[in-house]
Amino acid sequence: MKPIETCAVGIVGLGLMGGAFAKGLRRAGLAGAGLFACDKDAAVLAAALAAGDIDRAFRSPETMLPRCNLVILCVNPSTLLRFMGRFMDDFAPDTLITDIAGVKSAIAAAMERDLRPDIDFIPGHPMAGSEKGGYAHAASCDFRGRNYILTPLRRNKPENLAFLKDLIARLGFGRITETTAAAHDRNVAFTSQLSHVIAAALIDCETDVSITRFGGGSFEDLTRIAMLNAPMWTEIFLENRRELLDRIRQFRGSLDRLEDLIRKEDSEGLERTLQNVRERRSRMTC
Amino acid sequence: MKPIETCAVGIVGLGLMGGAFAKGLRRAGLAGAGLFACDKDAAVLAAALAAGDIDRAFRSPETMLPRCNLVILCVNPSTLLRFMGRFMDDFAPDTLITDIAGVKSAIAAAMERDLRPDIDFIPGHPMAGSEKGGYAHAASCDFRGRNYILTPLRRNKPENLAFLKDLIARLGFGRITETTAAAHDRNVAFTSQLSHVIAAALIDCETDVSITRFGGGSFEDLTRIAMLNAPMWTEIFLENRRELLDRIRQFRGSLDRLEDLIRKEDSEGLERTLQNVRERRSRMTC
Repeated sequence: MKPIETCAVGIVGLGLMGGAFAKGLRRAGLAGAGLFACDKDAAVLAAALAAGDIDRAFRSPETMLPRCNLVILCVNPSTLLRFMGRFMDDFAPDTLITDIAGVKSAIAAAMERDLRPDIDFIPGHPMAGSEKGGYAHAASCDFRGRNYILTPLRRNKPENLAFLKDLIARLGFGRITETTAAAHDRNVAFTSQLSHVIAAALIDCETDVSITRFGGGSFEDLTRIAMLNAPMWTEIFLENRRELLDRIRQFRGSLDRLEDLIRKEDSEGLERTLQNVRERRSRMTC
Repeated sequence: MKPIETCAVGIVGLGLMGGAFAKGLRRAGLAGAGLFACDKDAAVLAAALAAGDIDRAFRSPETMLPRCNLVILCVNPSTLLRFMGRFMDDFAPDTLITDIAGVKSAIAAAMERDLRPDIDFIPGHPMAGSEKGGYAHAASCDFRGRNYILTPLRRNKPENLAFLKDLIARLGFGRITETTAAAHDRNVAFTSQLSHVIAAALIDCETDVSITRFGGGSFEDLTRIAMLNAPMWTEIFLENRRELLDRIRQFRGSLDRLEDLIRKEDSEGLERTLQNVRERRSRMTC
């Protein structure tokens, strides 16, 4: 790969994350040979051009992909798989591709199996986002200090992996964790998907929207992410359902245990549990 | 009551909330006749005096209470009831008392029944706090714009209620809601206690503290309040257990429903539910 300053970068899908990548690359002075984007929404492309976030907009991937050294796929998992199937022949030789999808096993398997031999694909998951979706809110998606997960394939070239990690660090992300797609899906089912299911359940179970008069911050914190992108999360929940159902079961076990301590008025057991929770949470570096 | 600028105010318990009240009263230029505090911890009293948060510190309530026009009880519910029983005769005539306890029915009932006829007690609950407890973190407890719940007793004097509401507004709080102790306990069981039980369960169910490498913000937001004051929350959970167990049941109903949609791979039903959740959450003014 050429140095990232002199690469041409193409972003597929200018939603919240695609927009945030465009702005981040621009801010860091990267992609000097051209920052391109394609999207099905012409208005979004026009807005990104007007904002100076991209150098050139494309309606059809066939014309953009041959011009790119690096392609960042910022679309839902199912769209990604369809896209790769349809446009596989349009990538330039030696293109490096990465993605941002929140569930990785199916993508990793498909890329191990079907990827053109001369191009490389490193699956990734930036642990950033916003409850406000779309390109219009891309500026509110802050990368600084956030976690980034990479699930490299056996076939990935070490120099491409080094290149991508350098790029991620220069975009401002904090910890970069390399793991398997399976471990990603198991862990993110807990830290991200289960949290979203819980937030959704909390809102689903109470119809009185004026109950927020009684809010003290915790309810607001727990349910901010209930402002979720319904099609995307539906896809992620279902795609990763085995891990997620397992995590729901695990969470319910602890919920049942706490409920039981409360029902039995086991003051000592409850206080000990809450004390342990406090200590464990304080050992977590968030 | 005298104007609040010229009152003497006594704070019982200089923890996080007592400290925040002292600092808030000081900042607003209130309690001109004296800002007093009593606490069992001499070091905390010394620190508050040194910081200029209070004018005078008392180790024994018997000497402080007779000097106060307004007393703010910033202690746990059970301590409050013991305190009122023990020091009932020490309050000055016509004292107005309020409290900050997170569960109100038992306190309201006790005060309706046992309060000295010449003094007044208006139960209250400032919906503010911090996962960092104690006087040392009082400055991090921000009142600005937060909700405040009052559960007035039948016997409260209207002028005292007006006085207290004015005081609360001048401390920077936002919405003040007057309701019954029963409605408070039912609603706060949802917005506050259930949130804390969920956060505790989320931490309780996962022993790997390095899982935060996979955190993307939602897990952190959901579990910040798991850094809870174990004795206080044990007391609140058990005191309000009937309402809380009911709220846990309600939440579990929605969790089960979401789990069922995921298990059945009901993409349409899941997306519709998440869309409804998003819309309901957006109608909540937090």
